[in-house]
Amino acid sequence: MTHPAVKVLVFDVFGSVVDWRGSIARDLGAWGDAHGSRTDWLALADAWRARYQPQMQRVRSGEIGWRRLDDLHLESLRELAPAFGLDALDEAQLLHVNRVWHRLDPWPDAVPGLKRLKARYLIGTLSNGNVALLVNMAKRAALPWDVVLSAETFRHYKPQREAYLGVAELFDLAAHEVMMCAAHNSDLEAARAAGLATAFFIRPREHGPAQTTDLVAVQAWDVIARDIEDLATQMGC
Amino acid sequence: MTHPAVKVLVFDVFGSVVDWRGSIARDLGAWGDAHGSRTDWLALADAWRARYQPQMQRVRSGEIGWRRLDDLHLESLRELAPAFGLDALDEAQLLHVNRVWHRLDPWPDAVPGLKRLKARYLIGTLSNGNVALLVNMAKRAALPWDVVLSAETFRHYKPQREAYLGVAELFDLAAHEVMMCAAHNSDLEAARAAGLATAFFIRPREHGPAQTTDLVAVQAWDVIARDIEDLATQMGC
Repeated sequence: MTHPAVKVLVFDVFGSVVDWRGSIARDLGAWGDAHGSRTDWLALADAWRARYQPQMQRVRSGEIGWRRLDDLHLESLRELAPAFGLDALDEAQLLHVNRVWHRLDPWPDAVPGLKRLKARYLIGTLSNGNVALLVNMAKRAALPWDVVLSAETFRHYKPQREAYLGVAELFDLAAHEVMMCAAHNSDLEAARAAGLATAFFIRPREHGPAQTTDLVAVQAWDVIARDIEDLATQMGC
Repeated sequence: MTHPAVKVLVFDVFGSVVDWRGSIARDLGAWGDAHGSRTDWLALADAWRARYQPQMQRVRSGEIGWRRLDDLHLESLRELAPAFGLDALDEAQLLHVNRVWHRLDPWPDAVPGLKRLKARYLIGTLSNGNVALLVNMAKRAALPWDVVLSAETFRHYKPQREAYLGVAELFDLAAHEVMMCAAHNSDLEAARAAGLATAFFIRPREHGPAQTTDLVAVQAWDVIARDIEDLATQMGC
């Protein structure tokens, strides 16, 4: 399978490129041990992530104006703090915990796969994470993006159509010359509806060992891959 | 001299990081030779660049709505074409000529200096070039930006204050934690007025051997360097 029209590949990041759940548990687990904490960090990660879509929906619906993901994450964290034994944290500690989303580790295939793709295509992010979050993450984890694009760039959270079409417009390309690459079928459904090419790969442990979602491709996406290394192979890299 | 507060360095690009005048003459000179052209490419480069500020001023003043630099460049090129023997070009050729601004070569110190700075700071562009132009340029020339920011990102052409303050806002920093780095005093004057730190380096041949502008620092900028390698040294890299 070849996709000669595709010029730019943009990637979903949370779950697709980086392991948010495992990273939060590792990073804050080590930090918590040093601070005598007994927080269940995996449970916090799940509860925090469960507030992700509802928080963005407040922006999408117009209930609140544009708000960057760092700020939505912090609001959620303040709400969750009492239930997770974090209400004694001072403001600097709370901000450190909140910025764990800047310190997520990539899945093992991500950096080698992206490097291969970068040799032939222009590669970037298209994440609901804000620009600073994505740039700090990339610098720490050596993610070799040509360009960091975010919902913040377009002031529209995915799956709003404007985010996908914004990439094509920025590069003066037709929608089908941009490929959305993600481990989430819903992201690709919205990308395809906007006219983008689509690539799916599976992250069976994004939500831990009992994951039930996104274990299979629900449509015939343009590419269906095992991981980003396999995506690179299928894209001729 | 140390600048412990600075976290992010953003660079002017045209003239400061890349040699637009020499690159246009080399790139289009080779292309013109292959096409039997007798165009004086250095003269075209100068005439084209002379229309740069007036074109952006139409946007800044509100005379026209937002227009990306690629489109402003193309409008200027169409106007200049008859005088430079380019009126016989077809549309694809004209677009190839216009995209020479994506194919500019860095000054020799730029890539090694930026690599040194990147090890300690977050580095990016803050250019009036549009995002696609800057990303294509960076990919071709291996400019190691952590982030590509543009007037297009903020919908304000420098020296409008919003472009400078937009960088600080994006990274949730105070203005003085961002350093504007440029070979043009006027850029730094606007950056300083917005509260940014400033670094000047000299590009004595940007406009060719007879250059008379920006040969000295006109204010006591926070750093005054010979080039980007020297800037890296002065920034402790």
